[in-house]
Amino acid sequence: MPQLVECIPNFSEGRRRDAIDAIADEVRRTAGARLLDVQADESHNRCVLTFVGDLRAVTNAALAATRRAVELIDMTTHRGEHPRLGAVDVIPLVPISGVTMEECASAARDLGRQIWETLHVPVYFYAEAATRPERRRLPDIRKGEYEGLAQKMADPEWAPDAGDPKPHPTAGAIVVGARRPLIAYNIDLATDDVAVAKKIAKAARESSGGLVNVQAMGVVSESGRAQVSMNLLDYTTTPVHRAFELVRVEAARYGVEILESEVVGLIPLDAVADAARFYLRLNDFRREQILEARLME
Amino acid sequence: MPQLVECIPNFSEGRRRDAIDAIADEVRRTAGARLLDVQADESHNRCVLTFVGDLRAVTNAALAATRRAVELIDMTTHRGEHPRLGAVDVIPLVPISGVTMEECASAARDLGRQIWETLHVPVYFYAEAATRPERRRLPDIRKGEYEGLAQKMADPEWAPDAGDPKPHPTAGAIVVGARRPLIAYNIDLATDDVAVAKKIAKAARESSGGLVNVQAMGVVSESGRAQVSMNLLDYTTTPVHRAFELVRVEAARYGVEILESEVVGLIPLDAVADAARFYLRLNDFRREQILEARLME
Repeated sequence: MPQLVECIPNFSEGRRRDAIDAIADEVRRTAGARLLDVQADESHNRCVLTFVGDLRAVTNAALAATRRAVELIDMTTHRGEHPRLGAVDVIPLVPISGVTMEECASAARDLGRQIWETLHVPVYFYAEAATRPERRRLPDIRKGEYEGLAQKMADPEWAPDAGDPKPHPTAGAIVVGARRPLIAYNIDLATDDVAVAKKIAKAARESSGGLVNVQAMGVVSESGRAQVSMNLLDYTTTPVHRAFELVRVEAARYGVEILESEVVGLIPLDAVADAARFYLRLNDFRREQILEARLME
Repeated sequence: MPQLVECIPNFSEGRRRDAIDAIADEVRRTAGARLLDVQADESHNRCVLTFVGDLRAVTNAALAATRRAVELIDMTTHRGEHPRLGAVDVIPLVPISGVTMEECASAARDLGRQIWETLHVPVYFYAEAATRPERRRLPDIRKGEYEGLAQKMADPEWAPDAGDPKPHPTAGAIVVGARRPLIAYNIDLATDDVAVAKKIAKAARESSGGLVNVQAMGVVSESGRAQVSMNLLDYTTTPVHRAFELVRVEAARYGVEILESEVVGLIPLDAVADAARFYLRLNDFRREQILEARLME
C-alpha cells in the first residue's frame, strides 16, 4: 500500500482569484503532490485546498503554499464571516493509507517548526498533534481570532508551540495538526417534521448520549425533508453503518423511515468497504481483494 | 476515469516452472501492462495469468504471451484434467472502468485475427465477442477438446472465426472473447446440513428459477458448514447484495441464518460501492467520491 496523506489547508482569501490561483499553483508545482480540489467562499473570504501525496510531498506542498499565502494575504485588512487566526488558518494532515496517525502528528509538528523557522509565523499544534488537552479542539485555539491574537499570546497559557509569543504582523498565527478523515454524512427522513430529526440527532451524537466520534444536528434538507446532518470524526472506530443503523432504529420510534442518505464530498475507500463488510457479513474481506486497490499497491 | 481492462488468459502448462515464467515475463515486459497474479495447477497442467492495463497494453501483452506459449507448449504430448482446446486455451478481456463491453468485444476480435495472421493458430470468438449464439458458452466451443479438434473443425458449423479450419499442429486453437468480471461469492450458513444449502442454491441460480447471471451450488465448506457457492456473472445487472438477500430469505424458511460470506479472489471497486449504496440508501453516491478512486482519474 503506498503512503497516502491528505492535506486540507484553509487560507484567509476567498475573493481574489489571482491570489487563490497563486497559492494553489504552489501545490501543483510540488513533485509528488496531487491537487484534488480548490473551494473558495466569498462571504467567508476563505479558500480550502485538498491535496494528497506521501508525507514528504504533502508537507513540502503545504510549506510552499503557506509561504505564498503569507506573502499575499494581509490580515490587517481581512474581513470575513468565518473565524480565523491568520493568513493560513489551519493545516490538517490526514492519514489515508500506508501511514500511521503518529507519523502524521510527528510530521505536522516538524512542519510547524519549519514554518516558524523559515516564515517567522508562530504555530499552534492541534488535534492528534496537540501538546496539551486544551489545544486539541480547533475552536478553542481560534477563540479571539486574529484581532485578539496579540492579547491571547501574551498569556503564558497560550504561548505558541513553535515560535515567539507574538503574532506575525500581517499573517497572525497558524494551527497545524493531524486528524482522522472526517466524513460528512446526511440522512434524509421520510418526513418534513424537523423536530423528529432534532430528536434523532440528539440521540445519535456523542455530546448527548449517542455514538462517540459523531456530531449530529437536525435540519431541513434542500428538498424540504427532515435531515439528520452528521460529521463522522473517526470512521475507523465508529463506522458509517453504525450511525445509519442507530438513526434507523431511533426513527422507527416515531414511525419514520430513512428515505436515503448522502456522503458530502470525499470518503476513504476503507469506509466504503467497511459498509459492504458489515451488511454482507464479509468477515475476512481484505482491501487488497478490490481490484483497483491492488493496482495502487 | 482511466481505461482499465482485465485479461485472464489460461495456458496449458502447469508443471514446467521455466515455461510458466517465460510466458509471464512477456506480460511483465509489455509497456502499460501490470501483472497481478500467476496461478499454476499441476493436476490441471494449466496456468492462469491475471493482468490489467488499457486495451492496447492488454492486447499487446496477450499477443506476446500467446506467441511465447505457442513456442513452448506442445499439445501432442499434453495431459491434464481440465478441458482445453490448445496451448492457449482461452483469452477473456474484461471491462473494469473507462471502457465499454462493445470496445472489449471489438478488441477481442482484432486480437483473434492478429493471432491467426502472425501465429497461424485458428481462433473462435466467445461470450460477448461471439459471432453466433451457439458460440457464446465456452464449454460448447471446448467440447471434443484438442484431441477432437481436427474432426470438429471439418464440420462447417464449427469453422473458426479467424483462420483456416485446421488445428495448428502443436497449439490447436484458441478461444478469445470479452465478458463481464466474474465474482466468486460464497455464503456460509449457520448449519452443517448441506441439503439446506442445495435447496437454497437451487432457488438462487438462473437455471432453476432464481436470479439471472447467477450460478449456484450447495456444498460443504472447508470448515464443515453448509455453503451456497456462487458465481455472479454480471454484477452490473445482478449485484452482490441481491444474491445475499435472496439467500437470506430462502434460508429463513428453514430457520437458518447466514453466518458470513466470502469473496474468493478479486472484486471490482464498483461492486463493493454498490453494496454500500444499497444498504445505506446512498442514492446519489458517485464513484469519484471515493478518495482513492479520484486518484486513479
